Amino acid sequence: MILDGKALSNQLDVNMKAEVAELKATGLSPKLVVIIVGHDPASQIYVHNKHRKAIKLGIESIIERREADFTEAELLQLIDQYNCDDSVHGILVQLPLPKHIDEGKIIRAIDVHKDVDGFSPESVGKLFNNSHEHYPVSCTPKGIMTMLSHYHIDPKGQHAVIVGDSNIVGRPMGALLLNAGATVTYTHILTENLSAHTKTADILIVATGVAHLIKAADIKPGATVIDVGMDRDENGKLVGDVDYDHAKDVAGAITPVPGGVGPMTITTLMQQTIELAKVADHRTLQPVR
Amino acid sequence: MILDGKALSNQLDVNMKAEVAELKATGLSPKLVVIIVGHDPASQIYVHNKHRKAIKLGIESIIERREADFTEAELLQLIDQYNCDDSVHGILVQLPLPKHIDEGKIIRAIDVHKDVDGFSPESVGKLFNNSHEHYPVSCTPKGIMTMLSHYHIDPKGQHAVIVGDSNIVGRPMGALLLNAGATVTYTHILTENLSAHTKTADILIVATGVAHLIKAADIKPGATVIDVGMDRDENGKLVGDVDYDHAKDVAGAITPVPGGVGPMTITTLMQQTIELAKVADHRTLQPVR
Repeated sequence: MILDGKALSNQLDVNMKAEVAELKATGLSPKLVVIIVGHDPASQIYVHNKHRKAIKLGIESIIERREADFTEAELLQLIDQYNCDDSVHGILVQLPLPKHIDEGKIIRAIDVHKDVDGFSPESVGKLFNNSHEHYPVSCTPKGIMTMLSHYHIDPKGQHAVIVGDSNIVGRPMGALLLNAGATVTYTHILTENLSAHTKTADILIVATGVAHLIKAADIKPGATVIDVGMDRDENGKLVGDVDYDHAKDVAGAITPVPGGVGPMTITTLMQQTIELAKVADHRTLQPVR
Repeated sequence: MILDGKALSNQLDVNMKAEVAELKATGLSPKLVVIIVGHDPASQIYVHNKHRKAIKLGIESIIERREADFTEAELLQLIDQYNCDDSVHGILVQLPLPKHIDEGKIIRAIDVHKDVDGFSPESVGKLFNNSHEHYPVSCTPKGIMTMLSHYHIDPKGQHAVIVGDSNIVGRPMGALLLNAGATVTYTHILTENLSAHTKTADILIVATGVAHLIKAADIKPGATVIDVGMDRDENGKLVGDVDYDHAKDVAGAITPVPGGVGPMTITTLMQQTIELAKVADHRTLQPVR
């Protein structure tokens, strides 16, 4: 089974577009601000894609572009301006930032109620405590949970193995799976005999940035394989962290690259913008899972 | 090897007592407030032990005892009083609270800079993001890290398996081990074939509250076994979650119950009270591990 993130995200977009129209009709217009500092080419593309998606769904989108010499103090001031602006529901600072700016400080400067990326310590703490309140979650792992749910893959009682323990993907991914009742193993660069771990996974999440790190022989037959990688192979072709062509014959379900996890990330960002708008406006919300 | 938490905590107490005396000589007197609501017998003992230990080390200790019908509003007011009191460095509300009080709300009411238990979402988030700032951590898992370090057991590259994923022990324990470079597996009540997981552990942490859940056959020969349990067996005897008498012949290192993890928890609480006092007074601090 191919887990088609592109098709699912298109389907979710249709629902979101309708929901945004409804919200606007009742006086609530979800609004997202994306701040980008400098000219990192990949970041430019991501920001452009977010803007395009927001516009398509009827979400108000502001892109604040600043030169690479924009200071930390100026950035803090810009964030504060949007923190104070009640018409704005989500604030996202595109990472990475230039080296002269402290990313942790910037993330903590964003009002926790507008932290649409779910990167603030408070949101992360709620996630890891499986809090029953609403909190935003890092978009890539949350999008993966949406995809698993859509394909009726229930992590409860399953063994999930995470390869790569970044704060943006691996760690929150493990917390979401743990909260959903999975047994969770975190593996990473220091893990010895990685294959011995990945071969025990019912659900294998790979987020390392190493092209084709995971081969067919590293996968338990029938496992669900989620590939977060967006790498370039020796010919410059976009590939994942999983050797898809061979892995697909072993896995029970697998995400392609591109068209798997990627589209779900942006769609989740839009979902969370709408959620934050509804929370800010005291509207009813589905419980977090 | 027996990991003697009692002996280690006594040794650390000697150092702390000297440090507290030094701090007092320079005008800084660490002060801890413990609030207990109701008459839970186990909680009474814990609070008494904390008070006695603080006094022994020269740490100022205030116990606020309230009847079981103390309201949530009254408790919030009491916390606020100590939040505003600059002479107080740590505030601990003994759990569990009576059912009419929302524990999450109470924990979040404690000033994050006085959250000596490390239970606030912000502290938990910093832990799970492996933040480089200072933050308090739940005392039991932090005490276990101190014990591992003392006995030169380095988690880096080791496979640590956690049995029990509570917010107070299992989850922060896994985060500390992950931050120290271990491969970490979280197992819990929904885990299938628990023994298959525990048998792969180089470091096995058991915190379930089930007497003698883990037998010798569940342990990899030579593994480090940390038993957080404080259970009663059928004869009313205090035992751990691990069948110590048989497990000790398989394990490479093991904590006894009592005299293992327990004493380290209280000692860690005192360490964190001192740390919070030093942070509040802008004094130099050892980096967090």
